[in-house]
Amino acid sequence: MIPNFIHTYVSVDCVVFGFDNENRLNILLVQRHFEDIPNEQHRKLPGSLIMNNEGVDDAAQRVLTELTGIKKMVLKQFKCFADPGRASEKDVKWMDKEYNHHIDRIITVAYLSLCKIDRKINSSKYETVDWFPVDKVPDLPFDHNQIIQESLIEIRKWIESDFTIIFELLPKKFTIRQLYQLYSAISEKYIDIKNFHKKISSFNYIIQLDEIETNVSHRAARYYSFDQKIYKKNNTKLIK
Amino acid sequence: MIPNFIHTYVSVDCVVFGFDNENRLNILLVQRHFEDIPNEQHRKLPGSLIMNNEGVDDAAQRVLTELTGIKKMVLKQFKCFADPGRASEKDVKWMDKEYNHHIDRIITVAYLSLCKIDRKINSSKYETVDWFPVDKVPDLPFDHNQIIQESLIEIRKWIESDFTIIFELLPKKFTIRQLYQLYSAISEKYIDIKNFHKKISSFNYIIQLDEIETNVSHRAARYYSFDQKIYKKNNTKLIK
Repeated sequence: MIPNFIHTYVSVDCVVFGFDNENRLNILLVQRHFEDIPNEQHRKLPGSLIMNNEGVDDAAQRVLTELTGIKKMVLKQFKCFADPGRASEKDVKWMDKEYNHHIDRIITVAYLSLCKIDRKINSSKYETVDWFPVDKVPDLPFDHNQIIQESLIEIRKWIESDFTIIFELLPKKFTIRQLYQLYSAISEKYIDIKNFHKKISSFNYIIQLDEIETNVSHRAARYYSFDQKIYKKNNTKLIK
Repeated sequence: MIPNFIHTYVSVDCVVFGFDNENRLNILLVQRHFEDIPNEQHRKLPGSLIMNNEGVDDAAQRVLTELTGIKKMVLKQFKCFADPGRASEKDVKWMDKEYNHHIDRIITVAYLSLCKIDRKINSSKYETVDWFPVDKVPDLPFDHNQIIQESLIEIRKWIESDFTIIFELLPKKFTIRQLYQLYSAISEKYIDIKNFHKKISSFNYIIQLDEIETNVSHRAARYYSFDQKIYKKNNTKLIK
């Protein structure tokens, strides 16, 4: 070991976003176990150390699959977090048990991912996986709260640069109101719903379906779907 | 050491951009030494392993200072590169000598930085530091060529999201033509020079100076400067 240089494990942590019926952005959190305090609730971002023969994107894809049961998820690396103090004493103690090895400093690479919230989560690794609205995320270990804060800025940038990733968060058939509410929840740019409607109707990759909402108290709205093939062919100018 | 998980050193590598008199984007490369083949020319990106008590941004700032002698440089983290095969046999051999320790896999965090090309480079660490036009960068070790390719996409995004960082690359007094040529060299969006002139003249943070070019064969152009204070006060809408 070379003195003075950090020699350690490297992890990935994933912030998975979902969009719920109440028009809130949600995040998937898992449970962290402490053997000596079994009843204490500890939430954290899903993550893992990186394996020997694994690239960092592969490690993130593995974590996402172990978390959700979904084979290939959209993902985007956004930042490496490496503050020397990011693991508290409690976090170090937890790593001692979890990895059966003493790790006092750990560097992590953070990823964004997107998941339709109505999709069944089928984790092969975690007993407990739950959606939390972003404004109701509890105190998390390490710098996971900071990672989530920074991921919110990143998801905005991502949607500004590629509007179509928004459809990863919507059900297969959606109303324009749902699309508008999701766009408004994420984007910092205000757009009124009339102008939004006008813009959307100029996009030939948003397909009007022969189906309207049922069992709703308000006037039933029409459903739409996103056609990736048409989008890819035309690459229409995105909302700016 | 826990089996199967990568346990290693982590480095930072910096892509420093400069803009030359021939309107080309340049990058700073340093020399890599092999004791057994002293005359072979080996260029690489400036970089370093991260120290024990150092954050990753601090490590990048240290590398930049050791490279240029400049105390505080603009920097932006853009991606972690961790392909298991990114160090070739030759690279591993070089690390053996350089760090007096066997490292067979190394993860790096890549940074962008910007430097006025007329600024004197005064390295405390490297004997040889040279500017290379981005289209004349030789074959580099590790995945440094790939890092440079991806950094070009990043610098475009950076300038699109914050136009004012372009002034980090220009001399203190510059002509509108210089600004236009730099913008054209970096941005993917075409704008003709007349429209560019019009836009620029609407920005009150670009100050017209009482000075024109001397010793030029074409019609002498007026000099301008960038006023950060006015910019910060008004935060005028950027070029889009």
